[in-house]
Amino acid sequence: MTETKKRPSRGGRAARVQARTNPAPVYLPTLNRAVGPIDLLGPDGVEKIHNAAMTILETTGIEFRDPVALADWKRAGADVEGERVRIGRDMLMDLISTVPSTYQYHARDPQKTVDVGGAHSIFANAYGAPFVYGLDGERRPSMLEDAHNFFKLGQMSQALHVPGVLPVEPQDVPVPHRHLELVHAALTLTDKPIKGSVLSATAARDTVEMTRIVFGEEFVDQNVVVTSLLNCNTPLVWDETMLESLRVYAAANQPCLLSPFVLAGASTPASPQGGVALLIAESLAGMAYSQIVRRGAPMVLGVAIMGVSMKTGAPMMGSPEPGLMNLLVGQMARFYDVPWRSCTMWTGSKSPDLQAGFDSANTMWPVLLGGCNFIVHSAGFLEGALGVSYSKWVHDSYQLEAFHRFFSGLKEESLDALLGDVAEIGPGGHFLGTDHTRENPLLINPLQNNDSYEQWVDEGAKNADMVGRDEAQRILHNYVQPPMDADTRGALDDFVAKKRLEYQT
Amino acid sequence: MTETKKRPSRGGRAARVQARTNPAPVYLPTLNRAVGPIDLLGPDGVEKIHNAAMTILETTGIEFRDPVALADWKRAGADVEGERVRIGRDMLMDLISTVPSTYQYHARDPQKTVDVGGAHSIFANAYGAPFVYGLDGERRPSMLEDAHNFFKLGQMSQALHVPGVLPVEPQDVPVPHRHLELVHAALTLTDKPIKGSVLSATAARDTVEMTRIVFGEEFVDQNVVVTSLLNCNTPLVWDETMLESLRVYAAANQPCLLSPFVLAGASTPASPQGGVALLIAESLAGMAYSQIVRRGAPMVLGVAIMGVSMKTGAPMMGSPEPGLMNLLVGQMARFYDVPWRSCTMWTGSKSPDLQAGFDSANTMWPVLLGGCNFIVHSAGFLEGALGVSYSKWVHDSYQLEAFHRFFSGLKEESLDALLGDVAEIGPGGHFLGTDHTRENPLLINPLQNNDSYEQWVDEGAKNADMVGRDEAQRILHNYVQPPMDADTRGALDDFVAKKRLEYQT
Repeated sequence: MTETKKRPSRGGRAARVQARTNPAPVYLPTLNRAVGPIDLLGPDGVEKIHNAAMTILETTGIEFRDPVALADWKRAGADVEGERVRIGRDMLMDLISTVPSTYQYHARDPQKTVDVGGAHSIFANAYGAPFVYGLDGERRPSMLEDAHNFFKLGQMSQALHVPGVLPVEPQDVPVPHRHLELVHAALTLTDKPIKGSVLSATAARDTVEMTRIVFGEEFVDQNVVVTSLLNCNTPLVWDETMLESLRVYAAANQPCLLSPFVLAGASTPASPQGGVALLIAESLAGMAYSQIVRRGAPMVLGVAIMGVSMKTGAPMMGSPEPGLMNLLVGQMARFYDVPWRSCTMWTGSKSPDLQAGFDSANTMWPVLLGGCNFIVHSAGFLEGALGVSYSKWVHDSYQLEAFHRFFSGLKEESLDALLGDVAEIGPGGHFLGTDHTRENPLLINPLQNNDSYEQWVDEGAKNADMVGRDEAQRILHNYVQPPMDADTRGALDDFVAKKRLEYQT
Repeated sequence: MTETKKRPSRGGRAARVQARTNPAPVYLPTLNRAVGPIDLLGPDGVEKIHNAAMTILETTGIEFRDPVALADWKRAGADVEGERVRIGRDMLMDLISTVPSTYQYHARDPQKTVDVGGAHSIFANAYGAPFVYGLDGERRPSMLEDAHNFFKLGQMSQALHVPGVLPVEPQDVPVPHRHLELVHAALTLTDKPIKGSVLSATAARDTVEMTRIVFGEEFVDQNVVVTSLLNCNTPLVWDETMLESLRVYAAANQPCLLSPFVLAGASTPASPQGGVALLIAESLAGMAYSQIVRRGAPMVLGVAIMGVSMKTGAPMMGSPEPGLMNLLVGQMARFYDVPWRSCTMWTGSKSPDLQAGFDSANTMWPVLLGGCNFIVHSAGFLEGALGVSYSKWVHDSYQLEAFHRFFSGLKEESLDALLGDVAEIGPGGHFLGTDHTRENPLLINPLQNNDSYEQWVDEGAKNADMVGRDEAQRILHNYVQPPMDADTRGALDDFVAKKRLEYQT
């Protein structure tokens, strides 16, 4: 905490000024959606997609490129031919029937524990960008210091529930050590729910070990303390690295987001219905396998959907068809009664500009309207997920507060009292001074500039990018590390030190 | 058409290249929404807001600051006391019962005629900004040339249905002449549906006269050819200028958007339910009055909703509470079975930047989810509606195409054919070459940059603002004026010339 050195004192007048101008974050709970979800399909339409997904798994089948998984499937009674696994619908539906509809996702600070599934939605951080757009706006490779900074921003964000585990991919840490540094940072720089490493079975095992140090062995066996992201190679391939991690986490009763990575029109059909039938088949197959490993382990139906440009072959984020697909995935997840995750707030733009704003919002709305439970990449992405911008990160974080407010819906209110105000104020008056207005302030986004043009010019004519960078700096300056008892911290440090040595040989 | 001089020839190879790189616009029809609308309230909730609105009009009443309207109301049987008019619910509901649920809104080119009401949505241009952010990005007062340019962009836009009548407020045209220049430009530079001037009763009358020259007197009496925007001064005041125009248009059977201008928390309660009860009362009172002028004249329930910052008093666009209010207004409009209009794509930003993108998208989504029929300010606004940006205008125009695609929902498709593709392609393949993919291209936004960082740098590292300005220039260069027969054009020119002289004396 080098920041504290700069401050002369934390008490007295300075502290009061500090508290007034930099108040402590007021954390938003799990979003309980009261707006939507939107069901595009009638029961027939749902049945059609379900049948198509089942037919894919029964006739075409899906590849599990991993000998252990193939043996497991064979033992469970599936039709295994080489790496191709064909799964009958009765078997598949039986397996996924034990996936819990909802789970509690525990944070080190119990106040920050959230709920996954049902009408709940949570916002999780961006994931794995090799580049950052720094506090100076310049693009460069991501470093461990950036990862630390994004954990700090994640801890300070009022609306981001899950700061993640890989906010950026730190290029200055050797690959075998990365998960150690990152899980350690996630557990010590934040007290929010963490995500797990899926780099390898070892990385997954170490993640689970470290959560056991912090939460206790028995607690971890019975409760969710980490959720991890596993991608299926669409179409229809689950690979060994992912499956090894899945086995570790499922055995430890910790959920994974089982996520086909979809380029609509390339890795799936361009048709929303056809694409969703395929990706549902893929995610359910992974989920079914998790239940062979441990019945009842919580799992999340996952998708990462973007389009592909027929002109250039480039992925497109923020276009309408993936939005429709998200609505369909949500409806199918409700049909299977499992939680689901999707991606949002991403853009192909190389600058936190107008395109980035449109793309980000246009990916968030369909995901929330689809009733998504676990919303990943909620802050910071640029450059098609290859870069994270400090500026955009803080903008996105404030946008999450607005989405939280909107999707929380209406408060119960007495219209009679409001009618009294209208009668009293009458034509031509104003409501600025009423009790109701004072007690129900509209949400203010501190980064949204609504000043006059002249005032804006007077204050430096800052565009949103510059405003965001200033704000990121301010928040990092005010970061307060959450406490951790010394024994736990010591055990965690020892574990990491021991493993670091081990992985050097 | 100075642009044509630059082109050597419109035939031969040059024309073919031109057609390939600058294809003629493919106009999108009326959006028929297949996604949403979202109803936040149950029948009880609707009844409560309805009762509150009726109670406001019965007990507090509303001011009509116009002697003719007061006399009309008295004759119709309302309780008139000074300028205060109290309207019983039976009378009010009887009057609005004759407002058509839907209407056809005729364009000079019948192919561009659109539908208003029901599940239809149309996009209309921004309105009345005194400043432009020019093709060079600099801010300056709006001129007539800018108005012409935005009519041209409106004509060339594939998704903008209504280029409006006052795309900017031209500071170089004397006020008494403005409506002449603008209506003339709207009718000659575009062949889409136009909006009408509401500057004064004279301006409204001239607008109707000019539409009669173009469409024929009888046609105008029986069909909608112009829609005009009238603001109520919230809370509870309709003023003389607006009411004079309302009388002219209603008598001519031409609809108006009867729109309280709402600063939630200032001009209405901060409560969505309370605010909506008030603005519904205001709009319905104006609509009821229109039916005293002419029973059966089409009218549109209108709102312009933004929040107000409790910190600075500035209007806030893109924040969540006005979004919720839009959902409520939509549900109430369906209850009254009348079309409704709202505002969108606006922002307080002074730059087409990240904030502008978020604010614009975050105002469009709730409006479309609320099932809005007549969506105003769909392109170009910055600076809290005081400025229109050429760059943002074209970005917004392409965004409208994406909204149109998304809200059109799913196409009927055979999943069997798609299953055949999946079986054939199998694990690890791709769908780029299938018939289905070729026949169902995903929408591409040409301003959305999805290139690699390196390619983007190679091509000048242009942010969205620069890209938009280039595109606006390209479109203006390729603008083609729609034909108008010489007699009509002559009569229109004569009318304007005569009136210009008249208003100079």
